[in-house]
Amino acid sequence: MKLVIDCLGGDNSPGANVEGSLIALDRFPGLELILAGDEETLKKELEKHGAGADRLSRIDILHAPDVITGEDKPTDAIRLKRDSSMMKSIRLLREDPTVSGIVSLGATGSLVAAATLRIGRLPGVRRPSFCPILPTMAGGIVGICDSGANVDCTPIQLVQFAVMGSAYMKSVYNIPNPRVALLNIGTESEKGDDLRRTVYKALSELSSQGLLNFTGNMESRDLLSGNYDLVVCDGFSGNVLIKTTEGTALQLLKKIKKDIYSRGIYKFGALFMKKMFAEEKEFMSYQNYGGSVLLGTEKTIVKGHGSGDARAVAKCIEQAYKMVDSGLNGVIESAVALLPEEYE
Amino acid sequence: MKLVIDCLGGDNSPGANVEGSLIALDRFPGLELILAGDEETLKKELEKHGAGADRLSRIDILHAPDVITGEDKPTDAIRLKRDSSMMKSIRLLREDPTVSGIVSLGATGSLVAAATLRIGRLPGVRRPSFCPILPTMAGGIVGICDSGANVDCTPIQLVQFAVMGSAYMKSVYNIPNPRVALLNIGTESEKGDDLRRTVYKALSELSSQGLLNFTGNMESRDLLSGNYDLVVCDGFSGNVLIKTTEGTALQLLKKIKKDIYSRGIYKFGALFMKKMFAEEKEFMSYQNYGGSVLLGTEKTIVKGHGSGDARAVAKCIEQAYKMVDSGLNGVIESAVALLPEEYE
Repeated sequence: MKLVIDCLGGDNSPGANVEGSLIALDRFPGLELILAGDEETLKKELEKHGAGADRLSRIDILHAPDVITGEDKPTDAIRLKRDSSMMKSIRLLREDPTVSGIVSLGATGSLVAAATLRIGRLPGVRRPSFCPILPTMAGGIVGICDSGANVDCTPIQLVQFAVMGSAYMKSVYNIPNPRVALLNIGTESEKGDDLRRTVYKALSELSSQGLLNFTGNMESRDLLSGNYDLVVCDGFSGNVLIKTTEGTALQLLKKIKKDIYSRGIYKFGALFMKKMFAEEKEFMSYQNYGGSVLLGTEKTIVKGHGSGDARAVAKCIEQAYKMVDSGLNGVIESAVALLPEEYE
Repeated sequence: MKLVIDCLGGDNSPGANVEGSLIALDRFPGLELILAGDEETLKKELEKHGAGADRLSRIDILHAPDVITGEDKPTDAIRLKRDSSMMKSIRLLREDPTVSGIVSLGATGSLVAAATLRIGRLPGVRRPSFCPILPTMAGGIVGICDSGANVDCTPIQLVQFAVMGSAYMKSVYNIPNPRVALLNIGTESEKGDDLRRTVYKALSELSSQGLLNFTGNMESRDLLSGNYDLVVCDGFSGNVLIKTTEGTALQLLKKIKKDIYSRGIYKFGALFMKKMFAEEKEFMSYQNYGGSVLLGTEKTIVKGHGSGDARAVAKCIEQAYKMVDSGLNGVIESAVALLPEEYE
């Protein structure tokens, strides 16, 4: 299996990308990687991390010195930054049938735009959708689909998000029958706007036909409860959902840290709890759960968090590997083909 | 000033409502309260809490034995539960010009429906909007408008939410020039859907005319940063925003507590930090910040959290008192009258 790694555009790029790639190569013996970035710099990084002959034999370099940043307007980036690591990677992905996927920590907007415009959608899929993962308080994980690729959604799109996300949670995380919930402002079936009521009905029907395991509406305060494996939402509220969760957890831990330093007795007590606090921070760290994957495109696309370290990059590559290895796209294609067309 | 207190429908009703009313009466010498609920029970509660002759002289009882619960469909509740404490309170509010507002911990849907159908809107106001308050990590507060009264919104509605919420933060919380942000999925001006782009433009224009202090788009992860006094959003994403914040904070504190009990050394360390953890919980407790207020109705309406205690009820009464006392409705009416009609 061959994947291309966009080695520019992250806060710790290209070091973290190169180091993460080496970790992934050790983990998956059948994997080959193409690293995109400035050739000289990448070679130096490989040397620095002691890549060694065996791993080097499974690495190719795609020279691409230019970088796309969050400042670049996606449409301009695609047209004008043709020598960027992201666009060269996407071009390779489109043109080389032996390359199965891409991992990038670069600008989200440009990556989604390039993927949507340059990489085809799977047959029947209306809109590719972003699906990140969060840890639950019950020790498991929960997927959120869509988390921002589509701000305006129709019912059929949300139904497809449910089907695609469900296939993803099953294929990559080995959850046999993912419990799917619809994000809403209350749990009763008639809650929310027309979109939510239509989708609720559609998901209930699909569930009764055994095509999905729909458990009903979910209020956002229950996201981390561990009662759900996948939450379906439009990209606007999904984006609010995930960023609020991250933001609140980080702000609260920061406040606790500040409060500990406010009094000697707290500082003393905290000495015995250092490990615990480190674990809480670790627990809420997205880096342990990999990146957001784009579901519904013909090739596998994984977007890691911009501030990801080597471990995060390795985790993203693992996700891409499992998506390809499990034949996820074939599963999505068959599942989407079974959907009735009536939910326009 | 006269307010009516719906004494049924909360988890700790009527005890918490009666006790909270007595606290509020002590705090505001000019205040008179009408307590709605079962007369016998209310009398017993007043006796139990040692109301005393002075306070009793400022209390009337509105006998209303029936209660509306979250199970009641709002439209049915309004039609069929005419003897409920909530509907009798709303009727009194509508018919008695000397009664300025209501505080209720009862079912939100029924309260909003009754308020919208039975109490008029202020001239020019399109839709009343819910505005709860959260604490920020900088030690201040932030208002969220709308948080769920309107799931589908037009641009002019969001613009009005900004104006009404801004007046509220100024009048009740003495914030001289509230910093208003628009909830969006990115900070750049062109982010989001058509609704967000139109509202962004409108708020910028109003800001340049000095009618508002618009600071731009806000990503949900920055809600608690302390950089904003009011966040404007449609009711669906606002509901997601506030419930995710509450849910994440509570879940995380619960997890920390559980983890403390997992090892002896953590338990030992936590002994020195008991006060701190109690303060963190206190900090995130909505009870300290009062209820959600409905902005844009002719009379003042405050909805307290269903699980509120006496302190929470007293805080809600304080909010209602300040809203009336500051002449908030007059401020909203003048501000709304200044808005151009072009943002349909």
